[in-house]
Amino acid sequence: MTLSLIDTLFSRRQRLAKLIHFPAILWSGTSTPRNFPANVFPYRASSHFLYFAGLPLPNAAIRLEAGKLELFIDDPKPSSALWHGITPSREQIATQIGADAAYPMAELASRTEGAATIAVQDAATWTSQTQMLDRMVLPQVAPQGIDLELAKAIVTLRLTHDQGALAELCSAATVSVEAHKAGMAAVKTAKMEAEVRAAMESVIIAHNMKTSYNSIVTVHGEVLHNEEYHHPIQPGDLLLADVGAETANGWAADITRTFPTSGKFSSTQRDIYDLVLAAHDACIAAIHPGVEYADIHLLACKTIAQGLVDLGILRGQAEDLVEKDVHAMFFPHGIGHLLGLDVHDMEDLGDLAGYEEGRERSSRFGLGYLRLNRPLRPGMLVTIEPGFYQVPAILNSAREQYQYLINWERLEQFVDVRGIRIEDDVLVTNTGAEVLTQALPTTASKIEELVTKV
Amino acid sequence: MTLSLIDTLFSRRQRLAKLIHFPAILWSGTSTPRNFPANVFPYRASSHFLYFAGLPLPNAAIRLEAGKLELFIDDPKPSSALWHGITPSREQIATQIGADAAYPMAELASRTEGAATIAVQDAATWTSQTQMLDRMVLPQVAPQGIDLELAKAIVTLRLTHDQGALAELCSAATVSVEAHKAGMAAVKTAKMEAEVRAAMESVIIAHNMKTSYNSIVTVHGEVLHNEEYHHPIQPGDLLLADVGAETANGWAADITRTFPTSGKFSSTQRDIYDLVLAAHDACIAAIHPGVEYADIHLLACKTIAQGLVDLGILRGQAEDLVEKDVHAMFFPHGIGHLLGLDVHDMEDLGDLAGYEEGRERSSRFGLGYLRLNRPLRPGMLVTIEPGFYQVPAILNSAREQYQYLINWERLEQFVDVRGIRIEDDVLVTNTGAEVLTQALPTTASKIEELVTKV
Repeated sequence: MTLSLIDTLFSRRQRLAKLIHFPAILWSGTSTPRNFPANVFPYRASSHFLYFAGLPLPNAAIRLEAGKLELFIDDPKPSSALWHGITPSREQIATQIGADAAYPMAELASRTEGAATIAVQDAATWTSQTQMLDRMVLPQVAPQGIDLELAKAIVTLRLTHDQGALAELCSAATVSVEAHKAGMAAVKTAKMEAEVRAAMESVIIAHNMKTSYNSIVTVHGEVLHNEEYHHPIQPGDLLLADVGAETANGWAADITRTFPTSGKFSSTQRDIYDLVLAAHDACIAAIHPGVEYADIHLLACKTIAQGLVDLGILRGQAEDLVEKDVHAMFFPHGIGHLLGLDVHDMEDLGDLAGYEEGRERSSRFGLGYLRLNRPLRPGMLVTIEPGFYQVPAILNSAREQYQYLINWERLEQFVDVRGIRIEDDVLVTNTGAEVLTQALPTTASKIEELVTKV
Repeated sequence: MTLSLIDTLFSRRQRLAKLIHFPAILWSGTSTPRNFPANVFPYRASSHFLYFAGLPLPNAAIRLEAGKLELFIDDPKPSSALWHGITPSREQIATQIGADAAYPMAELASRTEGAATIAVQDAATWTSQTQMLDRMVLPQVAPQGIDLELAKAIVTLRLTHDQGALAELCSAATVSVEAHKAGMAAVKTAKMEAEVRAAMESVIIAHNMKTSYNSIVTVHGEVLHNEEYHHPIQPGDLLLADVGAETANGWAADITRTFPTSGKFSSTQRDIYDLVLAAHDACIAAIHPGVEYADIHLLACKTIAQGLVDLGILRGQAEDLVEKDVHAMFFPHGIGHLLGLDVHDMEDLGDLAGYEEGRERSSRFGLGYLRLNRPLRPGMLVTIEPGFYQVPAILNSAREQYQYLINWERLEQFVDVRGIRIEDDVLVTNTGAEVLTQALPTTASKIEELVTKV
């Protein structure tokens, strides 16, 4: 049985009403100009608005109080039909989302007293939030007072996903899986990274979705935030593709696969691939309600450290190497993050969502980049994304710090492994974990098959 | 012989130096957050910066004075190499663009005295412009004083394109032509508009370019600013695709074609298509240096009015119908606009670029939407994009106003023609015009061939 949008939204605001005892106003935001005002970036509504309003309505606001939803939006101007065609009226939208009342935007000014809010990202709207609430509301400034209380309440709700959210998240995952298959099918004939990216994003566009973040599609997987696509694809390269879809209503997927561009891993590439996959599988197997996500991260670190010892790249005991952060020379980022309406869910609130109250980021290089540090609960959706990278900047510093713990001569034999990551979207269930992206194979041989099958 | 980037930029700032006698500082801008700060829209540098700096450098500024170029940009932080890999140093960039000097961003504060600027679009940067120049610099507010003088000087330069610009514009045109061919090849098997869009944008992405504006790909061409892609494609539909590429350095193309989704225009669709094409061809043939663009617009209006009279849809004399704005019931927009670094070139400056000094927008419905009103000069690049649309909101008002001038019964026979537009990018030359997008056929039979050839 699937709940309707109206029921889903109703239930979300009832749950909110149990957590806060003041009104909340959430603005949707407006389009952001690109190079001139009329040429805007594709509109993205604020995630907090989407959670309670369900639809990506531009220039709208909702007021939530005691489980009631008031919608504020202007009817399209008569002249709008000329350029934009017939668009739904305020009343039609109100019906669609089950609003208890609906008003023109101008009415909102008289309904702001005592209301909390969360800053949206676009300047036009946070300026308006600041004016209407008569206090600074800025996306760069952490919320305070009732705004902080509201943020915490929303975090509580959004940390675990309801049926309505899961339907959207599964749909984003399904399309992302198809995109990755298209990428694997395209890589053997592609001459440049951009061509593989095109094959992948084309699937997402064809399903009328967007990318939930700027895709990484590169033969230089060791550049972790690589958003360039101009490198030629050479025989023997590995291509790392970190690409995810976002549904029309804003729910995200986030998948990474690394595949051999010629259809066959070299033996060194396969050794490291299998090691990263072992970490990936171990982490997913360890996911259960009550387990600390930081322990999942440490499990990945240990698995990678042990694997590198077994391959002769590291020297020593895995536990000890992890304590010394030696694993982080090859796996410098966290094992994953929350996933929901945002690809790093609720990261607009800093670490409020990612970190359990009272916990702070570690200053250790091997732990500080962890984006999630909470005990897992059923309904949480997290990514699991171990990796292995040879980042020149990191290895240079490691040469001094870990001269004897790393077998540099042995490492040289793995020069054709610049960067590997395997990432899936994993739902915490009552009994363990469900991989929403499991339709996309992970094993080296299956990946080779998909690349070669063209 | 093609000029190097360095020579092109050198020449541009020498010409600027002849027009203004004060320093100008142009900021490039920064990435704009989408749903949270780290998840940004793809970076787009300010067009004015791109014109003089040549490269889409984020978080940079240039200071132009007496033909000299000073570059202000910070070297990448050491930690940046960890996530972003090796990126060019300030000195390397300075060499690449032929800067006369290069400094860290912090040095700019001491070099702002008496400098003019143009507001960029992103809030973080215009806030910084405002602070550093100690006056309000806002993209929503028309420039004044020396800022206005600078804007006018830049308009003078950017109105006509140099060799460096034309090379980029041709490259954008070439990729856009391929994208449209891919759309035509995809339409017969596509079930939804989004699939055709995917085929087209995939070509643009594969060439490592971006779309220069949000694509219009729709079977409802009568909705002029349609940015939805969810409609099913039905037999007998026409699909209107308005899609253009933008090069990595920011130069745009802008092409529209309308094609029969089943590979064959109906006789009514073909009648109107040929009429729109006649207007398109007549306008291009009329383009010469010295000709008023507004007269090109009127030529399109008259050609369309005459054609509609010939088809029995309008009653009366073409000239008279145009004077009464009856043509605008079916062709409500202008014949085109400037094209360059922006798809509506320099529209961030309002009508400063589009309208010759002393001219203002007409209040007439049939003329007021014209974006360009200047005599044509060699080196100007304009779009020519006549169309025919049955917009319900417009026709409803026309029923009262033009009851007898429109043969409503005859019009009913054209119910399968909702919207047609044919748009090309046309360079004004010394002797007439050169169509940069001419590799893409326009005739109905050639279009049918491209759709059917799959």
